[in-house]
Amino acid sequence: MHGSPPAQALNQAVPDPSPELLARASSLRRHAIDLAQCSDQQRQEALRAMADALEQQREAILLANQDDLQAAEQEQLAPALLSRLKLDRTKLDGAIAGIRQLAQLPDPLAQRQLHRALDEGLVLERISVPLGVVGVIFEARPDAVMQIAALAIRSGNGAILKGGREANRSCSAILAALQQGLARSAVHPDVLTLLTSREESLALLKLDGLVDLIIPRGSNALVQFIQDNTRIPVLGHADGICHLYVDRQVDLDQAVAVAVDSKAQYPAACNAIETLLLHKEIAPAFLAAALPAFAQAGVELRGDGAAMALGVSQSASDDDWATEYLDLVLSIRVVDSMDEALEHIARYSSRHTEVICTTNTETAERFLARVDSAGVYQNCSSRFADGFRYGFGAEVGISTQTLPPRGPVGLEGLVTYRYRLRGDGHIAADYASGARQFTHQNLPL
Amino acid sequence: MHGSPPAQALNQAVPDPSPELLARASSLRRHAIDLAQCSDQQRQEALRAMADALEQQREAILLANQDDLQAAEQEQLAPALLSRLKLDRTKLDGAIAGIRQLAQLPDPLAQRQLHRALDEGLVLERISVPLGVVGVIFEARPDAVMQIAALAIRSGNGAILKGGREANRSCSAILAALQQGLARSAVHPDVLTLLTSREESLALLKLDGLVDLIIPRGSNALVQFIQDNTRIPVLGHADGICHLYVDRQVDLDQAVAVAVDSKAQYPAACNAIETLLLHKEIAPAFLAAALPAFAQAGVELRGDGAAMALGVSQSASDDDWATEYLDLVLSIRVVDSMDEALEHIARYSSRHTEVICTTNTETAERFLARVDSAGVYQNCSSRFADGFRYGFGAEVGISTQTLPPRGPVGLEGLVTYRYRLRGDGHIAADYASGARQFTHQNLPL
Repeated sequence: MHGSPPAQALNQAVPDPSPELLARASSLRRHAIDLAQCSDQQRQEALRAMADALEQQREAILLANQDDLQAAEQEQLAPALLSRLKLDRTKLDGAIAGIRQLAQLPDPLAQRQLHRALDEGLVLERISVPLGVVGVIFEARPDAVMQIAALAIRSGNGAILKGGREANRSCSAILAALQQGLARSAVHPDVLTLLTSREESLALLKLDGLVDLIIPRGSNALVQFIQDNTRIPVLGHADGICHLYVDRQVDLDQAVAVAVDSKAQYPAACNAIETLLLHKEIAPAFLAAALPAFAQAGVELRGDGAAMALGVSQSASDDDWATEYLDLVLSIRVVDSMDEALEHIARYSSRHTEVICTTNTETAERFLARVDSAGVYQNCSSRFADGFRYGFGAEVGISTQTLPPRGPVGLEGLVTYRYRLRGDGHIAADYASGARQFTHQNLPL
Repeated sequence: MHGSPPAQALNQAVPDPSPELLARASSLRRHAIDLAQCSDQQRQEALRAMADALEQQREAILLANQDDLQAAEQEQLAPALLSRLKLDRTKLDGAIAGIRQLAQLPDPLAQRQLHRALDEGLVLERISVPLGVVGVIFEARPDAVMQIAALAIRSGNGAILKGGREANRSCSAILAALQQGLARSAVHPDVLTLLTSREESLALLKLDGLVDLIIPRGSNALVQFIQDNTRIPVLGHADGICHLYVDRQVDLDQAVAVAVDSKAQYPAACNAIETLLLHKEIAPAFLAAALPAFAQAGVELRGDGAAMALGVSQSASDDDWATEYLDLVLSIRVVDSMDEALEHIARYSSRHTEVICTTNTETAERFLARVDSAGVYQNCSSRFADGFRYGFGAEVGISTQTLPPRGPVGLEGLVTYRYRLRGDGHIAADYASGARQFTHQNLPL
């Protein structure tokens, strides 16, 4: 979500794929079809072979990353981006361990979701299957290649990867290792490919028929650019403008702790809050306790008039309510009622995660029922909105779109389903004529 | 899917919504939020009130339909379109009965799909919720208004409806009745609206933020035009180029019956087959039996060279393999192997429904595993690809996209989910520091 190529830089005519890219994507798709036929065990072994190869290539990968870092330093990349670009031994070992853990997760494929006899001898099943090929556009962040490639293989999908330009050398070294590992498994190495030029990454948008889903991990503007320029479905991972509403009936200490954690525990994440909404009856007591806590956490506050009257020193403009700071900045508004808070959220929220702090169960239930965000929380930090924390083992991103998959998306975001119907010469005419009737008996899954 | 406005007629600049339409859609959205809070029983009662009102307004609706029919006859609408436009007493009663049945279907909302303690006192749930507002563009077919409106209300969604122009009078009369019914229920009548002009239906594409899903029931070209001109997700209901492959090991009588049914039982449907692929070893015997059967059913056959050598009189061009006839026409190709059939399908199929006739279980399993269509069938007619036949009670359409919802889509295509997390002051910092650990215990659903 952060450090991705700025959308305006992409805003040029989307080129057609080169014959070379088309050939590569077609070959990748064919190999992905074979991958989809691999057993759970074969895909697990492929992940272990990928992990082994990364271990064997550790030095080459770390050296490539050194080269990326040097170039980035010369280009004076921002410190936050440099730290994300940097791949040290600890980070690499963590990523390798992540791949081994992913191998252990339950198989997302071949799950029977429906099993129903439509009539005697005419049996319908709904079975989870891979999407096919996913295209993932991500930040200049070498560990993302490993995680995304592993997620793709585990779920039986081919993957076309495009990382931030600054990480090209690291990503290439990692991809080479992953492919070496796959070469020792039942999975063809060419189910993975890495795009390294901007032209190729733009042309990816025109690979409809060869790519089934594009996952842009980038800014809102990037996601929107991609949605506007492709017919391929896009997993709408966008910005997070998350809210915390503090009700008039509340455990004050708890609410202050939740507010500080939701903002300051990792402010660059999309699941950090940007706006605090305070019920007018609790605002004085809450701010009395919270102002020192925010000051200690280094949070800059911007308030509406009522909040400023209670000690918030800077004023919030209308723009503040619509801004994802991704930084230690928080806007504060005092509201007359929960309804006013709900209206504010409906207007400004990006439908990522919204929190209420209240001790009143009825109030909480009303909030949880009426706020239409992917996550609606009571009395806990917005920072829990995360695939690992939800227990999904890994995540491809957080979707802020309304349609499923929504919220933190794990392996299940990379699978779809297929209906299988097995009969014994059954024809529709017999049911149209009334000669036979559907029975629709559910069978054990 | 059929008789929808031709895409080329839409191919003009998409206008911005008028202030009036924006106001109507905003109001509709607000009422839809209230509808989402209604109980299962309230939504059931709303459907029954809609059915009652349709009964009370039966004469007015039938008269409006008479007017539509007269105008359409003057415009010399094709007989198939006239017959779809016509709403007689029987059709109307059937639609009313359908609404009452829909009321009885299990509630698609408030279903708990996941229930997990992340830690003591920190409990995650995933709950099905409505999408919000759906926009449905459909053929000049008055019964569709009733079905779509009932599906929307049952699943807690507002709906913006746009039917084919020729049915405007019928649709308006029906909508008026439905709203009269809703006025006697807990659901506000303004959760439904009907667009009657082409300008409004184009402007619908720009109602992002107010409409969550667009369901175009129309031609491939219409669906593609909409996908290219909106940021709102589109349920990709497209054409069906379905195949039947007859293996060399087969029950001949059964295969002939399945082939004839798949083509001729209702050739205008998207789930009818367009191409028959015959293994070369079975082609002579199969065609000897099938040619008279197809002739009797009035099916025009177009074959490749090998099929023509076996008695098919007309030749198929390359275009035939890529054509959805929606008529009593069938292309036939003789293949050397199942692999050749699989390649043909991968190239030409619209991934709707593909059938194999074979008595060899291994062959069948290979076909069912490798063909990536929404439906993969063995020894039964492609015509079973239908929400009613699958036992979904009702369908909003058949999706040929890869991502879920795929295939026949019932009520579940109109719902999404939301994560609810309830804690007792839990903050992320405690897990980052190691003071607390996630337990990820699944709880009963």
